Amino acid sequence: MLALQEALLHGNAVQQRRAMAKAITLLESTRTDHRAQGDELLTALLPHTGKALRLGISGVPGVGKSTFIETLGLFLIAQGHRVAVLAIDPSSSVSGGSILGDKTRMEQLSVQERAYIRPSPSSGTLGGVAEKTREAMLVCEAAGYDIVIIETVGVGQSETAVANMTDMFVLLQLPNAGDDLQAIKKGVMELADLVVINKADIDKNAATRAEAQITSSLRLLGQHGNPDHAHHNEALWHPKVVQISALLGQGVDGFWAAVAEFQRLQTANGRLATRREKQALSWMWERIDAGLKQAFRQHPQVQGLLPSTLADVAAGRLAPSTAARNLLLANTR
Amino acid sequence: MLALQEALLHGNAVQQRRAMAKAITLLESTRTDHRAQGDELLTALLPHTGKALRLGISGVPGVGKSTFIETLGLFLIAQGHRVAVLAIDPSSSVSGGSILGDKTRMEQLSVQERAYIRPSPSSGTLGGVAEKTREAMLVCEAAGYDIVIIETVGVGQSETAVANMTDMFVLLQLPNAGDDLQAIKKGVMELADLVVINKADIDKNAATRAEAQITSSLRLLGQHGNPDHAHHNEALWHPKVVQISALLGQGVDGFWAAVAEFQRLQTANGRLATRREKQALSWMWERIDAGLKQAFRQHPQVQGLLPSTLADVAAGRLAPSTAARNLLLANTR
Repeated sequence: MLALQEALLHGNAVQQRRAMAKAITLLESTRTDHRAQGDELLTALLPHTGKALRLGISGVPGVGKSTFIETLGLFLIAQGHRVAVLAIDPSSSVSGGSILGDKTRMEQLSVQERAYIRPSPSSGTLGGVAEKTREAMLVCEAAGYDIVIIETVGVGQSETAVANMTDMFVLLQLPNAGDDLQAIKKGVMELADLVVINKADIDKNAATRAEAQITSSLRLLGQHGNPDHAHHNEALWHPKVVQISALLGQGVDGFWAAVAEFQRLQTANGRLATRREKQALSWMWERIDAGLKQAFRQHPQVQGLLPSTLADVAAGRLAPSTAARNLLLANTR
Repeated sequence: MLALQEALLHGNAVQQRRAMAKAITLLESTRTDHRAQGDELLTALLPHTGKALRLGISGVPGVGKSTFIETLGLFLIAQGHRVAVLAIDPSSSVSGGSILGDKTRMEQLSVQERAYIRPSPSSGTLGGVAEKTREAMLVCEAAGYDIVIIETVGVGQSETAVANMTDMFVLLQLPNAGDDLQAIKKGVMELADLVVINKADIDKNAATRAEAQITSSLRLLGQHGNPDHAHHNEALWHPKVVQISALLGQGVDGFWAAVAEFQRLQTANGRLATRREKQALSWMWERIDAGLKQAFRQHPQVQGLLPSTLADVAAGRLAPSTAARNLLLANTR
């Protein structure tokens, strides 16, 4: 464990890359002894984490996430940054392998020594996948990557998981009417600190209309915003909209200027620290909830009682609240 | 307990009304012995429940819910129905008393022998308030009320709770532009089986514009709907919009025709039964989750470890996932 930690923190490029892969694999393992080693490693790495900018990027399939992240990654490396790209793909446990984070998608970025790309963990619940990604992010930070991008697809609940582990959540949109309605409906627009209209080159008029529409939606959402995202209501940062063309490499500098401004403000007013503290605590509670449910379902008394209880509740012979109390009692035996 | 059960099921009007109040008060009690008696009563009543139409009604303050429910209730009583009105007010635990379900709001309905109005339970979490209301609904059904209306305000998460315990969820809206956007954003529009535009008499043109706008939103939401509400996607029932003026008593017959059509379809195609079965099971799991969390927080070992763990996680000295594992371990000791 000490050798791994040494290689990760102070190894040369080759040693470090190998140690990262080994550490992330260890943290992804479900074996109890691996888990204990993983926790020990994580605790040792923790003082070396937290210095990166954590950037969440989401958007529906076809919006051009890979091209955008590759263009952005190369732009950042040219400025001297080290860029890690992780992914949360909620479908990976179904398909048996991740479509996201696949290195073949980002050919130019993946060969860079200063880039690290890792596909989505491919097993378990969304909560489990998100936990592993969150831990992988800490490994990347400990290894000195100063920008960690966490990518997800704009379907399902994974956007909330990504928004809850990053400093800034970016939503990629196409210049299509109605897309913003879908994003509002799913509650994703509300999470966005920055909305990027990609492929703006294809139809400049449509992109400009979309920008106006989304700006207006963001204003409306901000006025009646979710108290959990109250930073949108407050004076300093208001979610912005920028147009880019990732394919032509246009607008990436403007995008990055907005990110830098966000980071500057959030650091200066202390909200970056507050956001991370809240994220860490809510993350802990989420894992506790998941653990309590798992232990409950594995309890022998509960397992004995569950089939007949489920049948009785489904058939209307037993009130759900009574059933819950019976099962909770069995869980304490 | 047997006397209470007898009076509830077979008493005269006065005995029954008294027994309902007594039963609901017993079910609302948090005392352990009351809880055991309540569970016994509930199980005995269960075979006599389930025959009512369960109607959820939500809308923001000012939309005219009380006037609408009073008009509807009187209309239904004139048709020979017996109508119970319950309420879930998420703010009641804060204000110390319920603003909803207050009998003074529905003066004409509350004096009817065939109507039963009960305010929101006033203590505990939303989950606890919803559980008590769900049990009160069963009491009303056992007492022979064939229409149970559960009312909630259009703020917070209570709409989901109401939609999850009713056969049909009705959203009241004003003929104002932008209101539908708020409802979409909060995910409430998506829950609606029927949208009612109230106060349509004030500005007929605005009401007609709102109807067109909401109809279009419902169609969009149906196309990309939440799989949990997949009945909206399927062929038989599509969420509808109707205009009424509760104050003038206009449109209540049209509203009721839509409800009756919904009920007829959902019964014929078996979705009413499926919906209730799903609701009962998810309700059971929700109460189990709440119970597990409560037991966890009250565990002596957890209580001993929690303060330092929270401080360490907040300060970044301990990874949230490691902290969760430590606390889960303490919970088993």
